[in-house]
Amino acid sequence: MSARMRFAHRLRERRLGLGLSQEELADRAGLHRTYVGSVERSERNISVDSMERLAEALELDVVELLAPLRLPKKGH
Amino acid sequence: MSARMRFAHRLRERRLGLGLSQEELADRAGLHRTYVGSVERSERNISVDSMERLAEALELDVVELLAPLRLPKKGH
Repeated sequence: MSARMRFAHRLRERRLGLGLSQEELADRAGLHRTYVGSVERSERNISVDSMERLAEALELDVVELLAPLRLPKKGH
Repeated sequence: MSARMRFAHRLRERRLGLGLSQEELADRAGLHRTYVGSVERSERNISVDSMERLAEALELDVVELLAPLRLPKKGH
């Protein structure tokens, strides 16, 4: 699963866990509601600065929003 | 330290650890050498897809390129 999809999944999971609507999260992060929706649908190639704003609004570190959903394969 | 700066620092650290030039890394990742240089100087608000390309070229997961340089403050 791509980093973009992981972020989308973790973002939605955390937002719902906090009981926030997309609009509430967008307000907290200073972003537009439709933007948050498109990120959650993996439609946006989001930038590191916007990832950090969303992470801060969700009181997480950005690495937590990129955490793999399954254990990575050991290649080495 | 911002996520953008962490990424810049970790990218350079790993590239040098593998003995790669910016040009060699850029070739591996299918990016331009000057782009890699600007990311390492924190000048670019890099996207998640490009972060993943660089991580793959360095045989790391993207979260490893965003790992904090110091322990985060415990706020909760």
